[in-house]
Amino acid sequence: MEWLDTPCPSPDAGAIIAARLRQSQLTKPPGALGDLETLAIRLAGLQRRERPAIDKVQISVFAADHGVAEEGVSAFPQAVTAQMVQNFLTGGAAISVLAGELDATLEVVDVGVKTTLSHPQLISQRAGDGTANSALEAAMGHAQMHLALQAGADAAARARSASADLFIGGEMGIANTTAATALYCALLDTPIDEITGAGTGLDGAGMAHKVTVIRRILNQHRHHFPDPLETLRCVGGFEIAALTGAYLRAAQLGMPVLVDGFISTAAALVAVRLQPALADWLLLSHLSAEQGHSFAVAEFKHPPLLDLGMRLGEGSGAAVAVPLLRLACALHNNMATFAEAAVAGKLP
Amino acid sequence: MEWLDTPCPSPDAGAIIAARLRQSQLTKPPGALGDLETLAIRLAGLQRRERPAIDKVQISVFAADHGVAEEGVSAFPQAVTAQMVQNFLTGGAAISVLAGELDATLEVVDVGVKTTLSHPQLISQRAGDGTANSALEAAMGHAQMHLALQAGADAAARARSASADLFIGGEMGIANTTAATALYCALLDTPIDEITGAGTGLDGAGMAHKVTVIRRILNQHRHHFPDPLETLRCVGGFEIAALTGAYLRAAQLGMPVLVDGFISTAAALVAVRLQPALADWLLLSHLSAEQGHSFAVAEFKHPPLLDLGMRLGEGSGAAVAVPLLRLACALHNNMATFAEAAVAGKLP
Repeated sequence: MEWLDTPCPSPDAGAIIAARLRQSQLTKPPGALGDLETLAIRLAGLQRRERPAIDKVQISVFAADHGVAEEGVSAFPQAVTAQMVQNFLTGGAAISVLAGELDATLEVVDVGVKTTLSHPQLISQRAGDGTANSALEAAMGHAQMHLALQAGADAAARARSASADLFIGGEMGIANTTAATALYCALLDTPIDEITGAGTGLDGAGMAHKVTVIRRILNQHRHHFPDPLETLRCVGGFEIAALTGAYLRAAQLGMPVLVDGFISTAAALVAVRLQPALADWLLLSHLSAEQGHSFAVAEFKHPPLLDLGMRLGEGSGAAVAVPLLRLACALHNNMATFAEAAVAGKLP
Repeated sequence: MEWLDTPCPSPDAGAIIAARLRQSQLTKPPGALGDLETLAIRLAGLQRRERPAIDKVQISVFAADHGVAEEGVSAFPQAVTAQMVQNFLTGGAAISVLAGELDATLEVVDVGVKTTLSHPQLISQRAGDGTANSALEAAMGHAQMHLALQAGADAAARARSASADLFIGGEMGIANTTAATALYCALLDTPIDEITGAGTGLDGAGMAHKVTVIRRILNQHRHHFPDPLETLRCVGGFEIAALTGAYLRAAQLGMPVLVDGFISTAAALVAVRLQPALADWLLLSHLSAEQGHSFAVAEFKHPPLLDLGMRLGEGSGAAVAVPLLRLACALHNNMATFAEAAVAGKLP
């Protein structure tokens, strides 16, 4: 696990300057492409070249179960985690459809679904048969958490080996908005009831119960806060740990990361607490409709690109933002300059 | 011009019900895809089928000059209109790059650029050598406006003949934020200085001067407000009239329209004032960074999809939103249902 402390590289200042200069010469009023300009310039810095590209995208979805599901914090039964893994693999889930449309590589990693699954395309790197119930004890043991972090790092390494230009992490795990909310409360010190949302669709009574359970989780493990890894171990989940490891490793290996929604941002927050320099590598894709995500994204310098009221997870919000990155690069790389097109510049 | 009064059809209620039912059966928590669900359902109603598609997209960019440019209301010289038309045709402009990436048909229509242009791909349907200066007289004569409206309707008809699933209008015309702002002031009764923006990049003094010019325009033509066509004729522009005609005709012919930013929304507003039923056919793509666009979009039922700080025009913001529509359709059409994937539904 020495890689955990490997520093994330800094963006290339020279490439940023070159990209910014290029943007200023393209046939448009300065700044008229808004966030698409900023994106192209950020990507230039991360990919260390004046003209970035997002051709090859890897999406790794990590699935695991949560002991805390037995507290009745989800609107869906726990069996859905395993059923959705099957659905990812057979192409019927949102992320499967999106990966196909984007021509992205989709891999599914079992980091600890309760039922053992078998499928030729499933990557099995299980840290346990679901986590323990964090309302009663630590969700993970130390060795388990390390296995899950490593599963994430391995996914990032596979993406790098396949020359991916962008890494997206996704997750599936019934009850994982409870784990993510507990992480936010512990790391951000935000009020539980302001950050707790409906997850997959709780009603008012269900939300109130979820708040009570999260309060129990926080009281149980408060002495470990705000140490990020211990907090992750006590209240998190295998798939959240895997995302944490994947984000850090992707950045260490020089790959920009597109972060999905509420659960993924919790992993991103843990990872940034471990290494603040990671923040440059994380592009937030969308603002989730899950109440509380706005607190989380406020911790990052750049706001999310999209606000479409999505709250599905799986990496779906990040996938939906991929075309924006691709179009930002295409505009940056292929538009004519004022000189090339013989277009007059701004009046003096 | 009898087509101007042809009613826009109503969306198909049966297709909407079928699409809504299908969304409720897909393997995701109800509503978890947010605006992408709403979009797919709206498109189903407009395309009159349970499973909509946005395969073929036509982008028609209308270019024209504005007499009011002589009042010094733009940060760029008037010659840029013609130069940018050339740039559209040779592939160097933002909209050219976007059309290529989206595999969309791009056509450029000269509806009255001051300099006569000639290019084998340029569609020439000129209503004049630029409009008259609206600070002094009506921008267009009646016959001129009808020519421009017809140029737009013809573009929509070409899109329909080519079986386009979606119509996008774009525009180019130095000084056209002045024309659009005057239209908004006349039709929305909003305060001039709240709705006047920097356009292609005016400084504070330039903005103050632009406000003064717009006040002169409004005083000059106030007796014609709020009649939408007379307002368009007196303070609008050829490309804005063309967009107005194109939007109406596209809807009449059963094609959904993706509306671009500040200028395009002004045309959309005129068109909706002529035929309120058109509103169902207009999908707003993005909130422009041009000050005042938020007043304009508030007139429509559905908010814009994107807010990326763009303010370029050309149809570029609409083009950037095309992948969202395509992904919304792909998810809607290709995700598995709970029954197909044997995934358990919500707990009772």
